[in-house]
Parts: sequence; structure tokens; C-alpha cells
Amino acid sequence: MSEFDRVIKGGTIATASDTFSADIGIKDGRVAALGENLSGDDVIDATGKLVLPGGIDAHVHIDQPKKGGIAMADDFRSGTRSAAAGGTTTIMPFACQYRGESLRQVVEDYHKKADGKAVVDYAFHLIIADANEQVMGQELPALIEDGYTSFKIYMTYPDLKLNDRECLEIFSLARRTGAMTMVHAENADCIEWMTEQLLMAGKTGPKYHAVSRPPVVEKEATHRAISLAEFLDVPILIVHVSSAEAMEQIAIARQKGLRIYGETCPQYLFLTADDLELDDEFEGAKYICSPPPRDKANQEKIWQGLANSTFDVLASDHAPYSFDGPDGKKVVGEDAPFNKIPNGVPGIETRLPLLFSGGVSEGRISLQKFVALTATNPAKLYGLHPRKGTIAIGSDADIAIWDPEKKVTITNENLHHNVDYTPYEGIECTGWPVTVLSRGDVVVQDCEVVASEGRGQFLRCDKPDPARPGMGTL
Amino acid sequence: MSEFDRVIKGGTIATASDTFSADIGIKDGRVAALGENLSGDDVIDATGKLVLPGGIDAHVHIDQPKKGGIAMADDFRSGTRSAAAGGTTTIMPFACQYRGESLRQVVEDYHKKADGKAVVDYAFHLIIADANEQVMGQELPALIEDGYTSFKIYMTYPDLKLNDRECLEIFSLARRTGAMTMVHAENADCIEWMTEQLLMAGKTGPKYHAVSRPPVVEKEATHRAISLAEFLDVPILIVHVSSAEAMEQIAIARQKGLRIYGETCPQYLFLTADDLELDDEFEGAKYICSPPPRDKANQEKIWQGLANSTFDVLASDHAPYSFDGPDGKKVVGEDAPFNKIPNGVPGIETRLPLLFSGGVSEGRISLQKFVALTATNPAKLYGLHPRKGTIAIGSDADIAIWDPEKKVTITNENLHHNVDYTPYEGIECTGWPVTVLSRGDVVVQDCEVVASEGRGQFLRCDKPDPARPGMGTL
Amino acid sequence: MSEFDRVIKGGTIATASDTFSADIGIKDGRVAALGENLSGDDVIDATGKLVLPGGIDAHVHIDQPKKGGIAMADDFRSGTRSAAAGGTTTIMPFACQYRGESLRQVVEDYHKKADGKAVVDYAFHLIIADANEQVMGQELPALIEDGYTSFKIYMTYPDLKLNDRECLEIFSLARRTGAMTMVHAENADCIEWMTEQLLMAGKTGPKYHAVSRPPVVEKEATHRAISLAEFLDVPILIVHVSSAEAMEQIAIARQKGLRIYGETCPQYLFLTADDLELDDEFEGAKYICSPPPRDKANQEKIWQGLANSTFDVLASDHAPYSFDGPDGKKVVGEDAPFNKIPNGVPGIETRLPLLFSGGVSEGRISLQKFVALTATNPAKLYGLHPRKGTIAIGSDADIAIWDPEKKVTITNENLHHNVDYTPYEGIECTGWPVTVLSRGDVVVQDCEVVASEGRGQFLRCDKPDPARPGMGTL
Amino acid sequence: MSEFDRVIKGGTIATASDTFSADIGIKDGRVAALGENLSGDDVIDATGKLVLPGGIDAHVHIDQPKKGGIAMADDFRSGTRSAAAGGTTTIMPFACQYRGESLRQVVEDYHKKADGKAVVDYAFHLIIADANEQVMGQELPALIEDGYTSFKIYMTYPDLKLNDRECLEIFSLARRTGAMTMVHAENADCIEWMTEQLLMAGKTGPKYHAVSRPPVVEKEATHRAISLAEFLDVPILIVHVSSAEAMEQIAIARQKGLRIYGETCPQYLFLTADDLELDDEFEGAKYICSPPPRDKANQEKIWQGLANSTFDVLASDHAPYSFDGPDGKKVVGEDAPFNKIPNGVPGIETRLPLLFSGGVSEGRISLQKFVALTATNPAKLYGLHPRKGTIAIGSDADIAIWDPEKKVTITNENLHHNVDYTPYEGIECTGWPVTVLSRGDVVVQDCEVVASEGRGQFLRCDKPDPARPGMGTL
Repeated sequence: MSEFDRVIKGGTIATASDTFSADIGIKDGRVAALGENLSGDDVIDATGKLVLPGGIDAHVHIDQPKKGGIAMADDFRSGTRSAAAGGTTTIMPFACQYRGESLRQVVEDYHKKADGKAVVDYAFHLIIADANEQVMGQELPALIEDGYTSFKIYMTYPDLKLNDRECLEIFSLARRTGAMTMVHAENADCIEWMTEQLLMAGKTGPKYHAVSRPPVVEKEATHRAISLAEFLDVPILIVHVSSAEAMEQIAIARQKGLRIYGETCPQYLFLTADDLELDDEFEGAKYICSPPPRDKANQEKIWQGLANSTFDVLASDHAPYSFDGPDGKKVVGEDAPFNKIPNGVPGIETRLPLLFSGGVSEGRISLQKFVALTATNPAKLYGLHPRKGTIAIGSDADIAIWDPEKKVTITNENLHHNVDYTPYEGIECTGWPVTVLSRGDVVVQDCEVVASEGRGQFLRCDKPDPARPGMGTL
Repeated sequence: MSEFDRVIKGGTIATASDTFSADIGIKDGRVAALGENLSGDDVIDATGKLVLPGGIDAHVHIDQPKKGGIAMADDFRSGTRSAAAGGTTTIMPFACQYRGESLRQVVEDYHKKADGKAVVDYAFHLIIADANEQVMGQELPALIEDGYTSFKIYMTYPDLKLNDRECLEIFSLARRTGAMTMVHAENADCIEWMTEQLLMAGKTGPKYHAVSRPPVVEKEATHRAISLAEFLDVPILIVHVSSAEAMEQIAIARQKGLRIYGETCPQYLFLTADDLELDDEFEGAKYICSPPPRDKANQEKIWQGLANSTFDVLASDHAPYSFDGPDGKKVVGEDAPFNKIPNGVPGIETRLPLLFSGGVSEGRISLQKFVALTATNPAKLYGLHPRKGTIAIGSDADIAIWDPEKKVTITNENLHHNVDYTPYEGIECTGWPVTVLSRGDVVVQDCEVVASEGRGQFLRCDKPDPARPGMGTL
Repeated sequence: MSEFDRVIKGGTIATASDTFSADIGIKDGRVAALGENLSGDDVIDATGKLVLPGGIDAHVHIDQPKKGGIAMADDFRSGTRSAAAGGTTTIMPFACQYRGESLRQVVEDYHKKADGKAVVDYAFHLIIADANEQVMGQELPALIEDGYTSFKIYMTYPDLKLNDRECLEIFSLARRTGAMTMVHAENADCIEWMTEQLLMAGKTGPKYHAVSRPPVVEKEATHRAISLAEFLDVPILIVHVSSAEAMEQIAIARQKGLRIYGETCPQYLFLTADDLELDDEFEGAKYICSPPPRDKANQEKIWQGLANSTFDVLASDHAPYSFDGPDGKKVVGEDAPFNKIPNGVPGIETRLPLLFSGGVSEGRISLQKFVALTATNPAKLYGLHPRKGTIAIGSDADIAIWDPEKKVTITNENLHHNVDYTPYEGIECTGWPVTVLSRGDVVVQDCEVVASEGRGQFLRCDKPDPARPGMGTL
Repeated sequence: MSEFDRVIKGGTIATASDTFSADIGIKDGRVAALGENLSGDDVIDATGKLVLPGGIDAHVHIDQPKKGGIAMADDFRSGTRSAAAGGTTTIMPFACQYRGESLRQVVEDYHKKADGKAVVDYAFHLIIADANEQVMGQELPALIEDGYTSFKIYMTYPDLKLNDRECLEIFSLARRTGAMTMVHAENADCIEWMTEQLLMAGKTGPKYHAVSRPPVVEKEATHRAISLAEFLDVPILIVHVSSAEAMEQIAIARQKGLRIYGETCPQYLFLTADDLELDDEFEGAKYICSPPPRDKANQEKIWQGLANSTFDVLASDHAPYSFDGPDGKKVVGEDAPFNKIPNGVPGIETRLPLLFSGGVSEGRISLQKFVALTATNPAKLYGLHPRKGTIAIGSDADIAIWDPEKKVTITNENLHHNVDYTPYEGIECTGWPVTVLSRGDVVVQDCEVVASEGRGQFLRCDKPDPARPGMGTL
């Protein structure tokens, strides 16, 4: 009988700080040893491969209830299968409250959707849309203690947005409890105003979605969120930053010593507003998300922001709305103005290959930065580290084995989500995850998902220690 | 016979990205295993302790020849013993050329000073003071191939300074060869002008040293060095940044996407210009270094720059000039004007405890940031990673075991350098390295240096990969 | 019979661009000639004096109806007499709407208050608190055509504040009509939140007024107002800027090419938050205004902002609340928490002497800058130029003759307002207006107000040309 | 006999602060009256015209001795005739020292070139290329007392450049004497380095001139000059700013409260680096000047810098090198590499029409800003105000009467300089000066130069008052 249940041999391991050659000994689903010449009951040969921490996708929407809009194409089964196929072993979807709902009930309902379906592990962020007394005084503090230690708030969307006072209450509670607040920063009133102008002028096509929310709208809300956080001296994280102007606000805040964290997404690295203006006009709807993709100059700055550490997290903001299906963007939106088209693009599976290819393979970021952005940093920011997000003794054996030379052209038919398109169709990637382990189980083998439904577990999150500046390698 | 020569058991290991509990198995001087329940011929109990990568002091002056000024009190024996006692297992002193000298000869001479004396490992930076054809065309490229892959240049000091054209030639060579250039950035002409004015006005005391080189002098040269690097698209590293204004230039450059790296030192975190104005007037000379310590507001910004990643390296700039000895600051400088007093303060042993105490124990930076600043980042920037600067399979077993609760009041009599004072006398630190290993050998035991003279080895440096932005966890 | 009704002889005339010696010939209340050796029926000897355009105080509160708070001590008689005594010949008070009121009715009511009382000329800004359909669709466009071409909006104060959408509607209307919007920029929700915290903690004294609205609150709203203006590409003017942070937002906006204008007030040049903490605790209430005075460092930056043209206007924000009277701050506020104390300080008479003394006499700004800030720029920004705000052929003969050497210690008993205190008590000024003319009439002679009640006329304002960048000497 | 020698009737007068309708009475060459219904011996009807202060071209090269390069095509006769035809009534050419020359002698020699030839007035800037003891200790202080109160220094050009120490000595002398220093800010070593690389690579055509001095070269030197001025607390003026990056340095400095002034030129508003790459390759040489024209984005920022007051002066930097003539760019440069082609473009006549047309007529700047940039500001900065640069009682009657509707297409054959080309060939201007007076004499009538040779007078300059921030309408 060997010492380990499974051994990954001969690979090149990378963490957020180091790259080295070693074998990994896995026992009871955890990393039990890093060393040389380890032996195990089961051996995976990783010679010539990169052995990386499985990705954490810290911003995904999965099977959210229809009440907020239309049905999502991915449930926890298809969503987590797609995640795993893309090298991601932990997802953090949103348990989304709508006004009038009990937050505790929302969480319980959401658990039911995940139970028995997920193939990799998951934690929940909360979305707080109703900061009423019951939520703020009882439910939320209790949920934080129960391991739901992060929540997103919206500064836009009619049915979700909080006003400044509500943001302050949320931030203040986060400060008291040590929870982390994620902020969707766009100015609601500007968007509404511009949307009305465009519709009145008959400008209803998908491309006007980008026109209706120019970068200044994002910059304003980003500055405001940061100012409110500065006012209360509390850390926050700005999600899905799309533009140089918003990014600059984060950089300025950090330079002043504020603890402001930033996330961006592949859509701001690989898409532009021009994608919303495709020949067949409605095709552009495939690329509608908020904030919208910008132009090439902004793309370039966002890449810089990854390299120079303005951003801490690269997430997908996976929003699984189909294009053609019964609840698809086309059915819902084709005869409707742009503001009725469901917002968001799918990307849970393509997130890591796109960043690896455009970032590491093309020399824009180091392998360490890749690991930090996609796994270690989100684990730290959301209280999952060191259980998740790294390869270290005692950590869960969530591991993605990458072939850094493998060339794959993204095409929707090869993806595992349940959405009928990908906005990245046709992009060729250099580097792809070939074998993926979750708590020591092989969940992807030779690019095939082999995980059993329901094996994924819910993760209680610790409170991050946002009071401590620097947060490790951030 | 056990598998490992030595095992460190029960400690909490920290790297630049992670903290975890594990045993370390050491074999042949290298880290051979990280795991649980490891056994070895020799076991060090690290229960309740932090097990960190040994520090790399990437900016020290040891036994430089007298020709550039006065004799240094530390040779490689006392210098490396002091380093080891302070948790540092690699030092990077300067092989310093003066004008007219062969660089190759300088390196050979310097090797003789280190051979047989050093107790921990060392690599050499070069100082280029004469960028003549022989140096630039032959010696320097050959030395880079031989493992001397970094060099410092001075924008000030009459006998060392290079003009812009010479800086460009150096930067250009660094670009071609992949070497790293360190820049001492102060405007020579401003300092000379102001010094003349002060001396003409009879203002000769130590405190006028700080007056003669105000922050704008550092800011100007920093901006100039960065601009020259931008002009050539080459990474550089600004050493010993002392002021918020210079630091801001680095931050601006990064925000623009430039690969500019920054170093600061404990003297800018713990001393101020007021220290140069002590009652017994000449006592102030103990605190003279260049750039000079600034004020409290600048100190605070420098601390912020560590936390927010504007700085990549914390080095000591150890300059072992005695105060009372035959070559001391007092003998040389007491009857002379401030500009004749030897520049620099000792600090090779106190560097890590000061940063640990003021940074980690007081909550200003994370433990990961401490490791990154003091070990991992310099290893990466100067081509020693992953051999040095981390705890990973295959790395040299250079390890410092810290007692994070141990309280030590710094007093010169307890230090191991050969200098007769420390500028940090009386500061109480929380956290101190108690056991230190170099390539698996115990060199410090219970705070006693037990290393044998001459066991330290010279390290050839790889070329860093400065063309790749982000450089890992930086 | 001489050519001119009145001649001012021998003085040194200054405009916003020039200083020169000349006689001024006045006919029919207008400047008819500038020349040498002019003769007139009445001659004023200005030898050794400065002859400046009469000041325009573009931000004053006079006799606003009690419904918004408590009674104001100054009506148009005392307010304009005080203005004249301080060298100001045009005031621009606010016709203030409260929610539910007809704007047209507000204007008519306000006219009645001015009619027959004012001793110098006046124009009205509007305050829009209710941007309803009647106001936006009919009343306001009509009023703009009728010569009420500027309006102030509030981002704070419960009964006045507009939300972002309302700001956008106002800005949009300003863009269509060419009117100018003035913005009181403080974040209402932050102030309310902090006020509640302070009151709950029993911190009710006047000094907590400053604590309840720190600079970040002003910075946030300033950035937001600028962003909304950028979104719509329309010029706006930020009033009573008190802090370096808010000022910096204006400077950044201008650097980007936006047409953002700025106003500051003497209280931010001569008072600090320490004034709110006087020994006899409630005395501090005398200095309560919003935004509150900051610290010395902010004062210094505000002075710089005058010199470097970040600010275009220096106004008084005269708020004539008495201290001891029946409607005074003391009666209303002494037993109440700080947030119930009437906001604002008097200053219509001291504005020009304070700026002249601290600015021109002490060498911080030029005489031209003084004229620009206090007369020419507001005339241009609010559509009164060249009728008001300069000394040029055809302009109204609104002229203040200053003795630049005259030393006057400010003391409330010598002021002409109806308020029972001045926050500037005891400040010695160098330079004071000795003779003041309004449309050629001597309204102040040897510092005595000699004007007849009711001679002041209402001024219809032209639309400024905010679409044209640079606006003259701004 | 009428009161005035000459009267300009019915025009619209503009100063840097005001626009108004008035007649101008001229007596003894000075403005004696502004008024209505003035009568004079000679009457000029300006109905429908703009009556502006004659322009001051504060940066022109006229008939500089050949020793510095090649012969200039314009002497004081053609140069001032061309100036006058373009609405300029004062020029400020450079008396240029070369190393080893007596500055006093240089001035005397230069006077001889002007005497008897100039048709409008002129003052001299000095160029200091040799800051030796005689110059600094004796000649320059004496010349400043004699009315030569401004000097330019070069940070580039082998035969003219000063090092930092020399700049400090010059700035220090300016501080002591109240003189104004103009700085040509480009980094000499960068240009030399890049030029060598280009020539070694065989890249010798005119277009490589722009490649050899990219914006970072200008930014670096601008920051350095500003830092040296900050170090000494002395005002300086950065001439011919071409790029957004350099301009930003000026804006940052002002925001910090430094007294840094800026000048730009029409070539940076109307030309781009693309002009250096014309089809017939050598044609590009016509557009060679230093710094070189940049791209459209930089042009746009330079226009913004005029509107937002980052720039104080718009000068021509007229450099009258012919293209085809015996000393022309072609003869000298066609078979030579780009760095041998004479630097500079002609523009003394087109400066004002280009700015008027592109700025005032197209709505980018106000008429007041036009007057300030082209006349009033340079008069103030160089000690000629209020004698020159405005229309005020007592000022010289230097007046340009503009037809704001007149459309003129620039073509070299219609210009009055002695250069055989204009870089602005074919640009259509809206607005042109039709009548020009110098000290009351008509020097241009109906666009014809009617001035007698030698009538122009030398102007002693006062010291500006650079210690006073704000300098009037700047």
C-alpha cells in the first residue's frame, strides 16, 4: 500500500509566487506532500505539463431564479461541468435577493438548486437588493457567521440598485463584521436618461446598449463607491471593470493607501463595442453585457491593469443566457429595444484558457500572475484560502494540469455549458487544461468531463482579513 | 537511515503567496519535501514558529576598497555573520569599479575578499563608474554571461556618477543582454550647488546633509531615470527610495505600463531628518545616508508604498562605517563639513526584524508581503529564483525560523556587525529569527551564530526575465 | 457745461487685464470716456487711489423666506448697503423655490422684497428644488428668456437636494438653453449617516458640524457633478469649494478639457474648523457653514487655487443669520444638536477687503486677478458682461475707489449688515474701498453709505456663452 | 485742430479681459482716449471690424549670425514687414551668444542688424550659451539693468546646451535679478543617442527627425527644468511645447503652486509628424523643427492647453530658413542626414491669422484669450506691459484692425517674409488683419505694408514681476 491515494508526477508546479518541479502526493482529497519520487496508488504523469491550482471563478451567475429576468441556461450541473472543463474547480455564484425577499430564504432556495448537481465545489456570494431592517439587523450578520462572507451590491438596475445611504449601511456592516462587499459600479440615472433619449430617437438596436452607458458612467460610480468606502474606512472590491477611466480610479485610491480591490473579465480583454455592431444587426446582442465592452485602447489598458496589479481578480461574470432558445436573447429581445435584451455573456469555461493564452503565452503576464488572478487572490479575498486557491500542504487537491502548448480553437460545440453560443467563437488559444482534479478526484480527463453529478460540496467561507493591507501577494 | 538529512517539524511555513503548516525535509542542502510527519536524522522543532525563506539582502556594501572613501568596518566574515543573525541567508554586495579600473579585475579582487570568509551565500552586483569601450564592449557582456547580471549606476557622487548618455548606454546594454540596472537617483548638480551655498554660509554641521538634498532632487533624478528607461523600453530598478515624491514617480510609471521596480530601506521607515539634528551636534552624523531620511509624513507614505506594492524590495543599503574608530565618521568628519562625512548607515542585521515588527506585527503588511519584499522579489529580480528566495521543492534550504512573539530591544552590543553603533539603538522589536539555516546547515542557533567561516558560496545569477511584465508576485 | 456728468480724476485704473492711469468720464450713469485731462460737472479726485470695477457678489442670500429655516437678518436695504460699503455694486441673491412652489411665483415674490429697498443693482439666481414638469417644461425656459439665466442646485439638504436624475434634467435644460448651473456639491447620504452616528453618540456641539461633513464628502459630490456634466457635455460651476480634494477634481476636469468653473469664499481662506471649537462652546456656532472651514493646509491650497486660476469666482455666500437675536443661531441652536443650527456666515461687506488684503497686499495674487475673481469673471459667467464687471466704454459706471494703504480692523459695529456678528472680527486689512459709485451715483463716500433706498435696479442677465471655452480671461 | 492725431472710429475693441465698442483717440503715438464720438485729424473707419492690440511675437529668430548654422533669409526689414502684415507690432528676437563670445558684444552686434531696418518695435531676448564668470558676474546683470530682462537657455543642441549646473546658475541669477528664463526643453543625450542609432541603420530621411526626438525626450527635460526651478523657487517659462506629456508637466507644476509658464506655437496646432513624410521625400524637410510636430491627438491636447490656460503665450518660433536658396534646407540638407537639415519653420506672419481662424473663428478660444496669448501675456511676462500688449490709456498705439469675416488662403507668394515657402500653404483662414498701426503710424493699410524702413524702435524691457503669482490675467 502506498503512502498516497494519488500522485501527480513530473510536472512543473506553479503557485502565485513560485514555479518548481515536484511530485504531488494526494491523500484524503488534500495535498499531503510535495517532493521527489513520490509513489501512490494512482499516478498521473504530468511530464511536460504545468500543474496549477484549480481556478476559482469568483463571479458567476448560475440558475438564478427567473423572477429577475429570463431563465438561465445553466444549472449547477452544466455550469460546474463547464467550469471544470475550463480548469476551474471552485465557483462562487450569487444567491440573489429581490426586494421583499428574506435573505435566509433566498440562500436556502439556492442551496436546493445546487444540491446533488454540482460537480465541483462552490461557495455563495449574496446579492443584497433590499437592505431592510430584518436583513441588516438579523439575517445578514447571521449568514456571515454561517460562511456567506461576501455580498454584491448594485449601483444600477432598477430592481436591484441601492442608493448611497443603503451602500453606506452595507459598507458599515461589512466593516463591523469583516465581510467583503463587491460593487457593480455604474450610474443608474445616467443610463436611464441616455436610454430614454436613445429610444425616443428610435435608436433601439443592440449597438446602442454600449452608447447608453459610456465610460464616464462607470467612472462616476467607481469614484463614488470608493469615496463611500474611504468615508467609512472599509475595503471594497469593484467588479467587472471595463474601462481605463474606472481602472484609474482604483489605482488612484490605492496610491492614497485605500484598500480598494479590482476585478476584470475576459470580455474586456477580448471583445469591443464593435462586436455589438455586427452586420446582421441582432447578432450584436450576443455581446451585450454591462458594463459594455469598450474599444481597443481600453482593452490595452485593462491588460496593463492585470500586469501592474491594479486588478486582483479575473472572473468570468458568466451569465448563461441563450441566444436562440425559448428564453434566449433573440426571442426576448429581437423585437424589443436594446434595454430589454438580457445582459451578460457566457464564459465560465473559456475564462482560464483565454487569459492563459493572451496573457501567459503571449508574454503579457507571468505564470505567477495568472495563478494569483484566477485562483489565489480570489481565495484570499473571499475567505477560502489556503483551503482553495493554491497548491500547498493541507490544501484541497484542486488541481488543473495544463498543456501549455496545446492549441485549441474555441467553438461552442466543444464547450460544456448549456448556452447555445460563445462570444469567443473562433479564437485560437495556446494552452489548455487537460486533466483537472477536485479534492483529489479526477473530474476532467483528457479534456473530457468525467465527474459525477452532485460530488461538488458547498464551501463555508471564512471572513477575509480585509483590515490588513496587502493581503499577501495582492 | 531516514530519508532526509534534516527535518523542520511543526512550523508554519510562509511563502510570498501562502501560509500553511508542514514539515520540511532537507536533503543535500535543498528542500526535498514538504509534507506531514516527515522524519530525518536531525529534527528541528518549529512548533509555534514561523518558517520563512531566508532573507536576501539585495543592497549591501561590504569591504569595498578604501579608494572610494574610507575603510568599511565589515568584511565578509562579520558582514555575513551579522546578516545570518538577522535572518538573511544571501547577500548581494557590490563589486565597485572606480574610473579607470578594469571591471574584470574589480570582480576578481572582490572575490578574494569574500573567499574563505563568508558564512552565507553571496552574489555580486557590479557598480559601473566608467562606461568606457572596454567595459561596455567586452568586460560587461562577458561578466553578465558569467553570472554577474545586475549593476548599479549612480546619478550623483563626483567619482561615480554617470551622465545621461552613459546611463543610456548602460540601459541599452541591459536591454540587449537581459541584465538588470539599479539606479541611485539624485541630481548631482543640485546637490553640489546647494552644498556650496551651505558651506559658503558656514552651515557645515551634519544636519545640513539633509538640507543639501531635498526631495525634489530625488524626484527629478527618479523621473529622469524612468524617462530614459521609457525611451529605451527597458526595465530598471530605483534603489533606496526615501520620499513620497520619488515614490509617486514610480507609481505613475507603472500605471502607464512601464516596468519600473522600486526598493526602499528601513532608514526611510524608522529614521527622520530630525535624527540628524541631535543635541550633541555631531551625533547626527550617525544618521547620515543618501538620500537622507525625510519627515514623518514621508515615512508614512513609504510604509504605504510597501503595502500597495509600489515597492518590490526592502534592502538595507548596509554601509558599515564606524563612528569612533580610526576610519570612523567622527575622525573623518568631525572637523570637516557635512559633505565629507562618510555616507551610509549599518543595517544588515536589523533589516528583517525592523520590517517584521513594524510591518507584520503592527499589521501594516501581510506575512506574504514580508516574504516577497525581503526574499522572493529580490531573488526574481536578480536571477536567483527559485534557487533562493522561497521554500519550494528543489530550492536551497535557506530558511529562517522566527519566533513571532519574541521581543528584542535593538542594542549595538548584541549585533554581530563590526560597526560601533546602530542607528536603531533602543527600538523594541516584536518578532526575531531564532534559528537560521543556509543550504540546510544551521548557521544560527538560538540567536547564536554557529556558522563556520568560509562556508558561504558565490552565486552566479541567471538573467532575470525583465521583458516579462508582472514578474510573478511582484 | 462740461462733457461729462462726473469725472474721476488721477486714479490708477485696473481691469482684469490691465493697470493704467486715466481719468474716467461718466455720462448718464455709464463710462463714456477714458482719457487724460477730462473735465466734468462733478470731479472726484482719485489721486493715489486704485479705481476698480465695483464688485459683483455672485453668491449671496438676502431675505429668503423663512419657510426654509429661520429669518434672515438682512433685507435688500441692509444687504445692499453692506455690499456697497464693501465695494460691491452688484449682488446676485437667490430666488429660492421650495418643493411644490411655482418658480414664477417665487420670482415674483422675491422681486417684491427687493423693490424699493436695494441701493445697488441686483440680478437673481434661481434655486431649483422641484424639477417637476411645470418647472422644467414651462416656467424655467420662460424665466431664462426673461433674464434669469442661472440657477443653483443642491446635492444635499433634505428639503432642497436633487437626485442624479434631476441634476441631469437640469443640466440638460441648461445645455439646451445656454443657462449656467451652479452646484452645491456635498454627498447628502454621507452627511446624514455621519450626523446620525454623532448624535447617537451624544456628540451634539457645534464642532461636530465639521466632523459630520469631511472633505471626502465634498470631493465625492464634486466628482459626481463634474461627471454628470461631462456625460452631457455642458459647463457647470461648483460653488463654495472648501477643500484641496474638491479643488483637485476641478483642476483634473479642466486638464481634460471640460468646462468646469469654480467658486470659493473668504471663509475658506480665513477660517478653519478650529474656529468651531472655541472655548465657550457655543460660540463655535458663529462659524458654522457648509461646507465647513477646513484646516490650514486646505486654506493654503485654496489660496493657490485662486492664484493658479483653478477658481474663477470669489463670492461671499453671505448668509445673514444673527447670533443672539430672536431668530439667531443661539436661540435656535443652543439647546439643539449641531445639525439644527442655521448654516452660513455673513460676509457681503468683508469679502473684497479680505481678499484685497490677504491677496493683493500680501502678494498672493495680482491686482488683475483680484478684479477678475470679484467682478469680471462673475459678470461673464452670469451674463452681465460688459454692462457690469469692468471699466470700459459703455459699461455702467459701477466703480469702487480703493485706498490701497488704508488699514482697517474689521469689527462688527462698523459693518452695515444687520447681523450681530462677523466671523472676521479683529482681522486687520490693508486696503479698503473709500468711495463707491453705482451707475455714476456716489453710493459710498468716505466709507459712509450715502445711497438712497430703492435706487438699485433689477438686472436681466444675458445667457453667458458657456459653449465657448476659455470665456475671456477666465 | 482736433484733439487727436488720429482716431479709430466705430470698431469693436477687445482687450485680454473685455470687448466693447469705442473710438480710440491717438496722440503722440499713444492711446490718449477711449470714448464716443471722438474726432481727429485722421480718421480710420473700423465699423464692423475688431480693433485689437497689435501682436507681440515673443519668440522669433531674425538674422542671427551664420556661425550657429546657415544664413537666415529674413533680416530685420523683411522680418518686421512680415510681422506687421500679420498683425504683429512687436517682435522679440534673440541676441544669440555662442561659446567664447562676449554677451555685451553679441548685443551690440545684434543692434546693428536691427538699426535702420525694423519697421515695427523690437526687444531682445538673450541666448546664453556660455555661462562663464564674465557673463554671469558682470555682463548679464548689467544687461538686465539695461533692459534685456529675459534670456533663453537650451537643454539640447551641441553648441548651445547648458548642463544642469549651468541651468541652476542661470535660474539663480534670474531669481536674484528678477529676470525671466525661457527654456528649450529636450534631452540632448537621448536625441544624440537615437540619432546615432538611426544614422547607423541608414535611416537618414527627414521623417527620422521626428523619430529621433519622441515626446518622452521633451517630457523628461520639461520635468527637469521645472524641478530645477522648484529647487530654487524661481519662475521659468517653457517654450514651444509640442506634446501632451510635456504640457501635463506644466499643469502638474502649477497645480502644486509653482510659477511655471508655458508657450506653444502654430506648428503644434496645424502640423503633424506626418508632414515630415511627404511623397517627394525631401519635401518633408520643410516641416522640420524642434521639438517636431506630433500627431493629431497631441494637437488636440495643445489646443486644449490654450483654452484651459496651461499655455500663456502663443509665439511663432519663426526660423527663416529657405528651402531652395543657397543657404536653403535643400542645398544644405538634401544629401545629408536629417540631423544636418536646418531646424525651424517660418511663421511670423501667419501666427495670428492661424490662431484667430482655428481658435476664435472655430470657437475653440475666446477673443479675450486670443489677445491674452498673443499680446497681453507676453507683454507682462517680458516686462513690456502696459506700454505694449493692450489698448489702454497711455499705451503705445500698436493696434491691429481685423476683419473677422475675411477669408484668406495662405500662400507663400502673398507673404512678406523672405523665405521661399510656408508650411501652412493652402490653409484657408477666416479673419485677417487689414490695417495695422505702430505707435499710431499706419504700417499696414488694406493688407499692404506701408511702413518706412527703420521706423521701428528698440524697447528696453522692465523686469517682470515673476515673484507675484498669477501675473494679472494669466
